[in-house]
Amino acid sequence: MNKSENRELKIVVVGASAAGLRAAARAKRLMPDSVITVVDEREIISYAACGLPYYLSGDIESPRALRETSWGTLRNPQFFKDAKGLDVRILTTATHCDPEKKTINIRNNISGKEEKVTFDKLVLATGASPFVPPGIPENHPRISTFKTVEDARNWRSKLETGQLEKVAIIGSGFIGIELAEAFTAMWGVEVDLIEMEDRVLPQMLDGEMSALIEKHLEEQDVRIHKTCRVKEIRDTDDGLSVVTDRETIETEYAVVAVGVRPRIELARQMGLKIGKYGGIAVDENLQTSHPDVYAASDCMEVELFYGERAVLPLGSLANKQGRIVGDQLAGRKTKFKKVAGSACVKAFDYNCASTGISETQAARHNIPTRAVWGTFSDRAHYYPEDKNIFMKMVYHAKTLQILGLQAVGEGEVVKRVDVMGNLILNNGRLEDILDLEFAYSPPYSPALDPLYVLGAAALNQEDGVLSRSPSLLSKEGIILDVRTKNESETNPIEGAIHIPIEELRGRMDELDRNKPIQIVCPRGARSAEAARWFFEEGYKNVVYVGGGWLMLSK
Amino acid sequence: MNKSENRELKIVVVGASAAGLRAAARAKRLMPDSVITVVDEREIISYAACGLPYYLSGDIESPRALRETSWGTLRNPQFFKDAKGLDVRILTTATHCDPEKKTINIRNNISGKEEKVTFDKLVLATGASPFVPPGIPENHPRISTFKTVEDARNWRSKLETGQLEKVAIIGSGFIGIELAEAFTAMWGVEVDLIEMEDRVLPQMLDGEMSALIEKHLEEQDVRIHKTCRVKEIRDTDDGLSVVTDRETIETEYAVVAVGVRPRIELARQMGLKIGKYGGIAVDENLQTSHPDVYAASDCMEVELFYGERAVLPLGSLANKQGRIVGDQLAGRKTKFKKVAGSACVKAFDYNCASTGISETQAARHNIPTRAVWGTFSDRAHYYPEDKNIFMKMVYHAKTLQILGLQAVGEGEVVKRVDVMGNLILNNGRLEDILDLEFAYSPPYSPALDPLYVLGAAALNQEDGVLSRSPSLLSKEGIILDVRTKNESETNPIEGAIHIPIEELRGRMDELDRNKPIQIVCPRGARSAEAARWFFEEGYKNVVYVGGGWLMLSK
Repeated sequence: MNKSENRELKIVVVGASAAGLRAAARAKRLMPDSVITVVDEREIISYAACGLPYYLSGDIESPRALRETSWGTLRNPQFFKDAKGLDVRILTTATHCDPEKKTINIRNNISGKEEKVTFDKLVLATGASPFVPPGIPENHPRISTFKTVEDARNWRSKLETGQLEKVAIIGSGFIGIELAEAFTAMWGVEVDLIEMEDRVLPQMLDGEMSALIEKHLEEQDVRIHKTCRVKEIRDTDDGLSVVTDRETIETEYAVVAVGVRPRIELARQMGLKIGKYGGIAVDENLQTSHPDVYAASDCMEVELFYGERAVLPLGSLANKQGRIVGDQLAGRKTKFKKVAGSACVKAFDYNCASTGISETQAARHNIPTRAVWGTFSDRAHYYPEDKNIFMKMVYHAKTLQILGLQAVGEGEVVKRVDVMGNLILNNGRLEDILDLEFAYSPPYSPALDPLYVLGAAALNQEDGVLSRSPSLLSKEGIILDVRTKNESETNPIEGAIHIPIEELRGRMDELDRNKPIQIVCPRGARSAEAARWFFEEGYKNVVYVGGGWLMLSK
Repeated sequence: MNKSENRELKIVVVGASAAGLRAAARAKRLMPDSVITVVDEREIISYAACGLPYYLSGDIESPRALRETSWGTLRNPQFFKDAKGLDVRILTTATHCDPEKKTINIRNNISGKEEKVTFDKLVLATGASPFVPPGIPENHPRISTFKTVEDARNWRSKLETGQLEKVAIIGSGFIGIELAEAFTAMWGVEVDLIEMEDRVLPQMLDGEMSALIEKHLEEQDVRIHKTCRVKEIRDTDDGLSVVTDRETIETEYAVVAVGVRPRIELARQMGLKIGKYGGIAVDENLQTSHPDVYAASDCMEVELFYGERAVLPLGSLANKQGRIVGDQLAGRKTKFKKVAGSACVKAFDYNCASTGISETQAARHNIPTRAVWGTFSDRAHYYPEDKNIFMKMVYHAKTLQILGLQAVGEGEVVKRVDVMGNLILNNGRLEDILDLEFAYSPPYSPALDPLYVLGAAALNQEDGVLSRSPSLLSKEGIILDVRTKNESETNPIEGAIHIPIEELRGRMDELDRNKPIQIVCPRGARSAEAARWFFEEGYKNVVYVGGGWLMLSK
């Protein structure tokens, strides 16, 4: 450690969750003589908010587990004092800050006492608050958000006492989906999942990928209401009426999980620059528009790999930001780089993960895209208990830069997203996918990883072998089913012409050159091969259905 | 597809497994008018050799599954003719090749008929043969290697007919380990695993990491004999005596799995350049020393990320090489880049994976290294059924370039190796680890991925907080146990001074500044924190034990 770093700074951090505490601990580690105060208006700090749905579900017995280190010590102010040398003050609100005079007013919410504290450097780690749309009452005994340990305790106590048999979850993002599982799988509660967009997990997935999750949720008896904007929630005799612009849903309770908004009251009061998505604007040093004020956590905007900015409330990023702010406070040059936005969520037996952007998001920024799809075994297809995964890769139609990967299914998807996310951060193009290396053994993956196969499919598409989304199967033109006789008879495709791929080379003439042809096989591999043959024979209007029948039929 | 590519080449490929067939299929795809002949001396081609141990174990019912496409079509010559337009000749040996005249003699092993074929381009995909050390009889009814479908069938039929109750496995590489599991777990056979080196999986792991696997194998009743070089195998009345330089092991049967050697007879006859590790020398175009001859598969040497060459018999690489050779034949500029050597193997309930090089390998090339270790939950520590993983990261002591990662345990290790392998290929340094992005949700990983934590530990080590291998705990000096009272009493460490980390800040003076101090906690996290405190207080000779008690006690 470079002793010259050890400046004696007075640092104040606002917000005692992952980012703020990590920034403080890191700064203290690098500058042991500095004095660091962390204030938080809440009583319970430093809890693993991402674990709360698993407390609700019963997977975790007590919320205390979410506040403990892995060796069972409670992460309370005393812990941070003893282990990290930090002065953490709970139930303490930062009410006003003068960044020029470098003073901040903090108020103890028990005693009401307010004091003015000076600082050399300030860190805003104020996070985000759940957003409650207009028309939904706040502080209602049957309606709440799901963000705090208190929220989780209240919901679980209703479950444990058998008060709750039916709930509406408003919003089908990560938390909405996790709650749908928690209420249903463990407690047998009837769930209505209400989503404003035309698909679940709308930030993460395009429609045809969301459809896979929707099917799975419905199999678990979750009722999904899409394209339903909640207009108001009314009390009824024995519960609530959730009134949307399409239908009214009767329920007992409602959880609002439509997303979060950065907490920027203090930043605004200080006159800091706010970005266009409503988060504090920072540079790659995580420095705000005031040079002595840093930001970390969901209160700020990050820069995405393609240059756009966004508020991305991901715990993985908050932790990284904390260390970087700590470094910066100590004069180190560590940067917070662009992010791909890799994320994952468990939805019953389905694993869902994504990185980069979807085609929907790309369209919003006028980025021209093409995509490929595939259904894969997550390990060698002959290995027992192999599970299917459904994947979609999005790339830039002109530069062939990889833009995103969406992966869902019962099999292993997260590792593929992790590998692809880091390739996206390196500005990877399609051809770079074929240079990726994967540890291979039959219990873990096919000899050619699904990512490799998707990359090759995309390159083949650029050579003329065109894929089409499984959601776009059209009754126009010819549907050519190239599955085996057995596969085709077991799960017929209405209106399709059936020619098994083994016979196709000799029977291509049977198909009208002038009609559009869509080829279907189970996973998209055989049909891609068949599409190539037609392409070589000069057929002009042939596509294969990416992901195949397995994705179509979901 | 660029029609100008479609040259009418005559191509001969020697070797009809993954690399050769993929090269041929790719070339035919790009140049439909070319004439491509693939010869192989065997009858059974294109089988998933990596799956054979799972046929032996009974996980796979018939070896036919290893020869089928995922839709159940047998990959025989007819399949390759119909689906790929290839002329595949089995039971056909390439006996002689004149690269200047571009002729190759091929002999049908049934009819004995030999013909001379001309070619424009030749591909050698001759693979590798199992090596049988001197002193071990070949063609012995109780001794064989394990490479072909025939081998697997023979062994399995002995198991099914109850002839085999005891077997010696010579060699503890991937195949040796997989066979140990197959014989033991499914068939209850007594296994003696004999290894020449001082550890199992010697190509993959350093000693302290191998030790974890050895413990696990022994718990499954596999008897391990390390540092035992087999000198000869003798017949006995009812079996075999495996005579090593240390002990003699009585058994019924012996499988030889000490590794493979590139098959380079034809390459030698042709006068092609052979590399120093005994494989065909190729450049990044996979071109041999003769410009019209390409190589792919385990018969050739690849270039590792740090510049050294090696024969790396990994199925994942062979498949990639095939496509690249196909591209090259068609005039495309695709390159086969350097490799990290990512690999994985299942050993009973343990997942084992590695990428890059171990410290043992680095030492062989005089590369100065340092390492960090850690024991981690593979998901959020509060999430049910989290499993431990043990990791070691090796980096260059001067440049801080990442050299390798070794990861074993019941939890998810492969994805971490996949991510790290690709970072190694990008010449990643320690600081780059902290920029990696991971999809995070409690069921899949901790908020800070183990890789991130290892990266931070390595950077802290460079700042002065030194780690030590769990294998090096010394009775010299002080062993300081900073676990909780309960942890310490449940699993005491002999001779250790116990001060729980919560009390340590106030009790550091109890420890003699002049003695070396080794700090132990369960996983290496608390002890690293404690080591930093001593470092800050000016103690000069303090280390923490990487991976902690959990790794030590294995």
